[in-house]
Amino acid sequence: MLLTVIFYVGITVEAMSAALAAGRRKMDWFGVVILACVTALGGGTMRDILLDHYPLTWVRNPYLLMIVGGAALFTIAIARVAHRLRWPFLLLDALGLVAFSIIGCNVAMEAGHHPIVVIFSGMLTGITGGILRDVLCNDIPLVFSSELYATVSIVTGIVYYVGLQWGLPTDLVVIIAILVGFPLRVAALVFKWEMPKFVYDKDMR
Amino acid sequence: MLLTVIFYVGITVEAMSAALAAGRRKMDWFGVVILACVTALGGGTMRDILLDHYPLTWVRNPYLLMIVGGAALFTIAIARVAHRLRWPFLLLDALGLVAFSIIGCNVAMEAGHHPIVVIFSGMLTGITGGILRDVLCNDIPLVFSSELYATVSIVTGIVYYVGLQWGLPTDLVVIIAILVGFPLRVAALVFKWEMPKFVYDKDMR
Amino acid sequence: MLLTVIFYVGITVEAMSAALAAGRRKMDWFGVVILACVTALGGGTMRDILLDHYPLTWVRNPYLLMIVGGAALFTIAIARVAHRLRWPFLLLDALGLVAFSIIGCNVAMEAGHHPIVVIFSGMLTGITGGILRDVLCNDIPLVFSSELYATVSIVTGIVYYVGLQWGLPTDLVVIIAILVGFPLRVAALVFKWEMPKFVYDKDMR
Repeated sequence: MLLTVIFYVGITVEAMSAALAAGRRKMDWFGVVILACVTALGGGTMRDILLDHYPLTWVRNPYLLMIVGGAALFTIAIARVAHRLRWPFLLLDALGLVAFSIIGCNVAMEAGHHPIVVIFSGMLTGITGGILRDVLCNDIPLVFSSELYATVSIVTGIVYYVGLQWGLPTDLVVIIAILVGFPLRVAALVFKWEMPKFVYDKDMR
Repeated sequence: MLLTVIFYVGITVEAMSAALAAGRRKMDWFGVVILACVTALGGGTMRDILLDHYPLTWVRNPYLLMIVGGAALFTIAIARVAHRLRWPFLLLDALGLVAFSIIGCNVAMEAGHHPIVVIFSGMLTGITGGILRDVLCNDIPLVFSSELYATVSIVTGIVYYVGLQWGLPTDLVVIIAILVGFPLRVAALVFKWEMPKFVYDKDMR
Repeated sequence: MLLTVIFYVGITVEAMSAALAAGRRKMDWFGVVILACVTALGGGTMRDILLDHYPLTWVRNPYLLMIVGGAALFTIAIARVAHRLRWPFLLLDALGLVAFSIIGCNVAMEAGHHPIVVIFSGMLTGITGGILRDVLCNDIPLVFSSELYATVSIVTGIVYYVGLQWGLPTDLVVIIAILVGFPLRVAALVFKWEMPKFVYDKDMR
């Protein structure tokens, strides 16, 4: 359904933006594909490892690897025009973030975990791919210092969880969660909403 | 009991020092909390993943996430005076290291693993959180080049394991292991005991 | 048999080259040993975690940790002459890569996974150790930008998988896969065969 479609859009967009990040580090085509796989599928993989939820999504459905790898190679082909796609990318990535969060909450809820773990699982699914991408690119993860991203995931997860607790129909709750999370992320991008920074410059060592 | 109390003290202190590390990289409040969670709970998490010991500690007891996140945010509030707390931090961190090591050995022993794996499991629990923190902060892990830290964990583990093999009562062995490991770490800090360095400057490539 | 012997040679060589990498970063002896363990055993460990294949190799057979740690310490002792061993190292590492790939395919095949996952598992086993080494050394993974390495692993895996599908005897297929993969890697080193690079210098952010 809706969520599945957005999931596929989301991993495709994550793969494509990871490919551009790989290109900025002059990686070869293989590196581009691997970085795309790690970024697009790493969040769900980390969640499943932490929650002992096997087999992993891409082990059950290995065509995901082909889709993600294909999206990465396609990005190389269209790299010349990629900078014009900044906003479409950001919008689809925002949609993907919301979908990943909902899917992550679902996995934890089906396993009967505590609400805190449910929200955490949604957030992990949404942000870990990008963290792994930044670690492999030798950067401090962007998600720790830029516009609201993880917060969007947490808010989406809370809306989704509470909606289901209220007994609303699942499809409706999914749509509500998207209608809350997506505009929140877009607003954060447009108005550059950020969490307050913690700046500490005394060295203890 | 004693070990549980020290465990809570240990994760709190690890969370607080991770928060300061996050502040040095100007992360936002969210990044501070995540870095604290990874640092304080990452060692036990890595151990449990490697030993297939599910559910993870913080999945079973999600309030750990709140404690660690709360300690991180509290650190932001007291950042102004944090540099005066260097020695209390180091002492409590040393205590935490010893407790983590003992707990890690316990997990591996209960699963019936080989003594080498038992000691290794204790060490993993003690040092992996700090390694993950350094990777996310884009540093070479401190534990690979500074004062005796992993060694303290290994010595603690050996004392603990051998004590139990000798049939001494568990509580006594815990206390002995703490009385060996804690002063060893403190002495390493005071006297700057280090492992010999391996310096290799010929490039093979 | 043959594969087991090459496996032991492979982890020894990976441990030794990781030790030299640690020496270039002036790590202490403990860091050298840990980096060697992560590099030599990290590929198989990552594969087993992703495929839920427990207990891990080194948990079942902890002497692997001793062999790898011993090889790392031995490297410190012979560091003075290590630069003369560049080619033996590269050749044995190539042999190890091929063996790791075959072993990785076997693990996935025994669990009944899809051919894509089988090849992927072989590649993970071959390359992940080096990726973890580079992350801990604070480098962008070499395998993303240097001479054909992962490709050798993939080709080896395909030859191995197809050979078994054709019903050839396992020992023969192992030898064929080695006779394809090993010369391919050596040729890549000698003739500096590389994947095309993706260079992208427009910044989207």
